[in-house]
Amino acid sequence: MSTRHEATPPLSGIRIVEIGHFIAAPFASRILGDLGAEIIKIEPPGGDPVRGWGAQSSGASLWWSVHGRNKRSVVVDLKQPEGIEAVARIIARSDALIENQRPGGLARLGFDRRRLQELRPGLVVAHVSGYGQTGPARDRAAFGVIGEAIGGLRHLTDHPPGTTDLPPPRVGISIGDSIAGLYAVIGVLAGLVRRSALASQGQPDDDICTIDVALTEAVLSLMEGVVTEYGALGLVRQPVGARIASAAPTNAYPSKDGRWVIIAANSDLLFQRLMALIGRGDLAADPALKNNAGRLEHVELIDAAISAWSCTFDAKRLAEVLAGADIPSTLIYSAADIAGDSQFRARGMVREVSDPRHGTLLHPGIVPHFPDSPGTIRSTGPEVGQDTEAVLADIAGYTAAEIEQLQKKGVIA
Amino acid sequence: MSTRHEATPPLSGIRIVEIGHFIAAPFASRILGDLGAEIIKIEPPGGDPVRGWGAQSSGASLWWSVHGRNKRSVVVDLKQPEGIEAVARIIARSDALIENQRPGGLARLGFDRRRLQELRPGLVVAHVSGYGQTGPARDRAAFGVIGEAIGGLRHLTDHPPGTTDLPPPRVGISIGDSIAGLYAVIGVLAGLVRRSALASQGQPDDDICTIDVALTEAVLSLMEGVVTEYGALGLVRQPVGARIASAAPTNAYPSKDGRWVIIAANSDLLFQRLMALIGRGDLAADPALKNNAGRLEHVELIDAAISAWSCTFDAKRLAEVLAGADIPSTLIYSAADIAGDSQFRARGMVREVSDPRHGTLLHPGIVPHFPDSPGTIRSTGPEVGQDTEAVLADIAGYTAAEIEQLQKKGVIA
Repeated sequence: MSTRHEATPPLSGIRIVEIGHFIAAPFASRILGDLGAEIIKIEPPGGDPVRGWGAQSSGASLWWSVHGRNKRSVVVDLKQPEGIEAVARIIARSDALIENQRPGGLARLGFDRRRLQELRPGLVVAHVSGYGQTGPARDRAAFGVIGEAIGGLRHLTDHPPGTTDLPPPRVGISIGDSIAGLYAVIGVLAGLVRRSALASQGQPDDDICTIDVALTEAVLSLMEGVVTEYGALGLVRQPVGARIASAAPTNAYPSKDGRWVIIAANSDLLFQRLMALIGRGDLAADPALKNNAGRLEHVELIDAAISAWSCTFDAKRLAEVLAGADIPSTLIYSAADIAGDSQFRARGMVREVSDPRHGTLLHPGIVPHFPDSPGTIRSTGPEVGQDTEAVLADIAGYTAAEIEQLQKKGVIA
Repeated sequence: MSTRHEATPPLSGIRIVEIGHFIAAPFASRILGDLGAEIIKIEPPGGDPVRGWGAQSSGASLWWSVHGRNKRSVVVDLKQPEGIEAVARIIARSDALIENQRPGGLARLGFDRRRLQELRPGLVVAHVSGYGQTGPARDRAAFGVIGEAIGGLRHLTDHPPGTTDLPPPRVGISIGDSIAGLYAVIGVLAGLVRRSALASQGQPDDDICTIDVALTEAVLSLMEGVVTEYGALGLVRQPVGARIASAAPTNAYPSKDGRWVIIAANSDLLFQRLMALIGRGDLAADPALKNNAGRLEHVELIDAAISAWSCTFDAKRLAEVLAGADIPSTLIYSAADIAGDSQFRARGMVREVSDPRHGTLLHPGIVPHFPDSPGTIRSTGPEVGQDTEAVLADIAGYTAAEIEQLQKKGVIA
């Protein structure tokens, strides 16, 4: 009666080809692979340059173990016609394709819309680029930092104007690429849902379904009311540093040992509770601070009072005292805090994974979590081309003799 | 032969119930609604408090026009048994449910797993919370700022240690909630893909499919190799401010008129081109700066040379000069820059939308973009309960007399 016991991850049986490099497209296929899809990563001879990024151990990138996990690596020289043919045969047996060449690059390889449709009616194709596949800026080069700045994220990630001469810091990870990757995943899955819906209605399913994700636009889509407020009121939203513009008190507060602790006590009730905890019953009783509007007006005073208290505790103790009083709060976690967090460990979100090259490594877990079919990290980032022969034989239908021939010509590796 | 002409958005025909508030769950349903799903937002009398957030015009939040778009609003008092029954009847006719009550909250309302399965075999249920539905911290209160700090994002969004006494700035938007929302969308869609796959195999489809998204974990999943590098090497990654740790030069550079321009010229070729542009052929020719490792070592020198040049131009002119030389670069966009950007306009990513209360507003576009079936913004954020009667009649099957009765009792509004 129940399918629960089967516990296959949700995307089992879906095959996805990635013609990607660096971060956005490979991040998208990592998420799809984590959820059980078979990922075939097409790489040039020598492999995706992202394989070398980040800190190294045993002569290899540690990040790659994560970024390449649950993927098969197929090395094909796309400058040779036989290489294109090999990829065509893989695409013909796949459900979706994710790529992040410059706009038009895939078509220049020979995989224009018409060809893809011939190869695999119903294929879902996600294009990821800096500015999108169309429009006056489509050919401009873009990296993540560019997309983050154009989407509006960088402007707001800063201290208030006039506070410091330092430039606005970058969000310290590849956030623009990752967000674009998440939208590419959403596009691929929505395309698959649509394909199934058409099939179940007995409708033809012969066209391809195209998705066009731009880094700039992926970032913009998270910008709340920023554009709307500007259009209606001429309001140009400005950064507010460590605070929240609309509610107080919420800030990062210093500890005795030089760390920062986040306290978010901006409801009337939480404010009362926090003021009692820090021994400032006078502020709790002050009618001017009773509601949020009043607290925003006197936020400097409130933050000074909280800081004067917070900096008398070491950070860990401070976090305990706040948690004990049920005030929403936390240490600002470093990598060490993440690795040691009991909640992450209990939920498998920091887990030990065996990597053939590195031995046991810590990996982040699989998100989103499907409790009944959580899936596994089936493999860590593969060696360059380790699956070329198997994929060409099993999926693309090449004979052993043909594969040997392609190897000799340097078409595959 | 082609289905292209139909151009229905990809999630047409999918119905999703949202029992959500504030940001994460409502953001997830906004994205699903943008892609064509029918969204039924269940709200308490008075509505979701997020309706009042952000700058106001005509006595109403402008953000709400965006955050609530493509949704129907149904007001039900969930403290009354008849209210629960009404929601049960809506769930029975829906494909998925997204909620962000505190863990266990949905079950306490009566919608535990068994009940949901009785109501709608095959239902996809996404739970969004701060720390997840299980584990020692599940009951702790969490806001977005907490999730961002625990996931590791906040620590890395800062200037290098020792640069300033200012606290690490918040990413100036609700990034943790939004990322969790995107993962909830991915979960719902993967659940729908799985349901279709089971159905097409003739397998029973009677269990519900549960997804458990935590803010902390959604953030952690974007943290590249941070946890892995710590585990293997004891390396605690530190913030690097406006630069990128692994490649130079990439930074924010000042303009004459006090703005910041991003320049990302960290390949060997781009570095040569940029040095020629700024009249520093001596640096272009310096063997010590020929490759990335050398440039990282002398990054202060390089950045000083670029800044000395950049601050002789006003920002707009600076951006033009850089674009003319094909150097990846951009102004850091404010709301005004976004609203005026020709690429965003050309792609409908900043578009005019008619709002019954506000008149014409600027909205961000629909992401991800499906060029063949781009969908539309069918409606802006609804008035509280404006669709209650229609949904109860058309979907839940109540008679007009029954609806009147529920209104009199204050069960619906």
